[in-house]
Amino acid sequence: MVTGATKVRFGDPRIELAHGAGGKASRRLVEGLLLPYLSNEALADLGDAAYLEVQGVRLAVTADSFVVKPPVFPGGSIGELAINGTVNDLAVAGAKPLALVATLILEAGLPTSALEAEVAAMAEAARRAGVAVVGGDTKVVEHGKADGFYITTAGVGVVDSRVSLSAKGVRPGDQVLLSGPIGDHGITVLLARGELDLEADLASDTRPVWPMVAALVDAAAPGLRWMRDPTRGGVATALNELAREAGVAVLLEEEAVPVRPVVRGACEILGFDPLHIANEGQFLAVVSPEYADAALEALKRVPGGEAATRVGEIRETPAKVVLASSRYGGTRVVDMLVGDPLPRIC
Amino acid sequence: MVTGATKVRFGDPRIELAHGAGGKASRRLVEGLLLPYLSNEALADLGDAAYLEVQGVRLAVTADSFVVKPPVFPGGSIGELAINGTVNDLAVAGAKPLALVATLILEAGLPTSALEAEVAAMAEAARRAGVAVVGGDTKVVEHGKADGFYITTAGVGVVDSRVSLSAKGVRPGDQVLLSGPIGDHGITVLLARGELDLEADLASDTRPVWPMVAALVDAAAPGLRWMRDPTRGGVATALNELAREAGVAVLLEEEAVPVRPVVRGACEILGFDPLHIANEGQFLAVVSPEYADAALEALKRVPGGEAATRVGEIRETPAKVVLASSRYGGTRVVDMLVGDPLPRIC
Repeated sequence: MVTGATKVRFGDPRIELAHGAGGKASRRLVEGLLLPYLSNEALADLGDAAYLEVQGVRLAVTADSFVVKPPVFPGGSIGELAINGTVNDLAVAGAKPLALVATLILEAGLPTSALEAEVAAMAEAARRAGVAVVGGDTKVVEHGKADGFYITTAGVGVVDSRVSLSAKGVRPGDQVLLSGPIGDHGITVLLARGELDLEADLASDTRPVWPMVAALVDAAAPGLRWMRDPTRGGVATALNELAREAGVAVLLEEEAVPVRPVVRGACEILGFDPLHIANEGQFLAVVSPEYADAALEALKRVPGGEAATRVGEIRETPAKVVLASSRYGGTRVVDMLVGDPLPRIC
Repeated sequence: MVTGATKVRFGDPRIELAHGAGGKASRRLVEGLLLPYLSNEALADLGDAAYLEVQGVRLAVTADSFVVKPPVFPGGSIGELAINGTVNDLAVAGAKPLALVATLILEAGLPTSALEAEVAAMAEAARRAGVAVVGGDTKVVEHGKADGFYITTAGVGVVDSRVSLSAKGVRPGDQVLLSGPIGDHGITVLLARGELDLEADLASDTRPVWPMVAALVDAAAPGLRWMRDPTRGGVATALNELAREAGVAVLLEEEAVPVRPVVRGACEILGFDPLHIANEGQFLAVVSPEYADAALEALKRVPGGEAATRVGEIRETPAKVVLASSRYGGTRVVDMLVGDPLPRIC
């Protein structure tokens, strides 16, 4: 209902790093400044990808820019991230990635070897994800701009005809599944900057989630309601967006959420909540209760999905809120990411 | 034939501005460094857009990043350019633009008013081009990077089933048509930088060319062989790419190429060839001789296409060369753009 729509106003006089962090400030920018101009049916959904119907074929399209700093980090690099990030946005829209286009904004003075390494990383990631980079564009800006390179990828996928995903379809009693441990990517990139006196044996989780999504669809398509890859803003922001769009509560069992000890330790030292830390190879799914076991079994059988687990369920109230329950019986409200404690992690 | 393929090696140790200028250096970067890693059937064509066949529907996809400096110039701005540029890449692939996705890389400290003006420009350009922006992404980088903003757009279009475009289909005797006067955009942006002590009453030609392309397809589809929008590198570079890919000669009648006196004057003062200057609202088409008159008539009837004209023809020899003939009977070889006299014009 248009009359019931929340009106957001973007009154900030200047753009700040937090507006790109994927949390509350990003959402205000999108809803308060971008949507009023660009609003249309496909965009209104605010998912990771938009749906298009073309001569009876249902397509998903998506685009992301990557500005991660540093461009190379344990377990991955900007080129690999640029492929997997877009593949994953299509995957969680229920779409098999079909083709990507990529653009490079390069800084004059960039060593060719650094560019070549990223092009090779893109090619290898595309091969692994089973998708072709079919076109693109290269621009060069002056030395001192663009931190070496920014990469943008856009993707087109064909939506699996068995799935119908929408926050609006989520119902009380539905189960919340998570593909594996959270926070690896954000903490890895943060530590790779070398600004903190912390070291950890940790690598980014960047990978294509399509194989897991495909297994989930095969096993549980009729019960599959919603998926999201919790990148910027983390699991907390993704679930808050779900709670808000679906008008439901999400009850998270905090102890059930897998977090590696090293990530938990780093978060404790730095004062971060692991639920706010970005992931690049995990996804959340909401499935109806009768399909939850089949969905989890299917996920666990996919290499890399062994740690998939149920982390919570949908409740009717308190509407639009994410609550985390601890084993001691208490609950706390889990908010979206506010501010930007971890700028430029993708 | 693979055995006849030209092997290009990219041996430059660092990336320079010329590698983003759309001329010879850009081509070496693409052919010598990007293609060896990312090569596939769709990419091998090196057109403005790649073709995909999805369940019987023929799609075109394309992406471009925009880094124009300054972001606002007479007749347009980066936001408008980002929409029209991608719409035009689809159009010259024979594809009706269906949907765009857009990503913004914003500089921290950017006044919100500047961003809002560009979002409004994007929305207005999309409305004029009859295409929706269905999704996107926003990243923010530190102050001092990204010159305010870089915009990337990707687009999906449905290829008109009546057209079959390919440089390989171009034959001796085919006619070369041009939609209107050249050089307006590049010279406008150059003068807008204010670094030269030159002033001129001139505006960018940024606009969607789809209405002209649609009229051309309606009138002359069976004879339509090839189209290209001569942006970076200008008409000279686009025609050199055609000559090379088709293995033919292009004979350009230099006097027939429309150039406004103010553009010609600026080029004379600055030592530029108008054939190398970027355009953002023109396109070149090659049509078989029997369809040339019908094609031109159709173009001239579209508002904005009144100045469309025949500028040359395809010859068998000298293969892979563009020659310009003057009214005095002499000819000169017209090369691709070399170096980058005009960095960051789109």
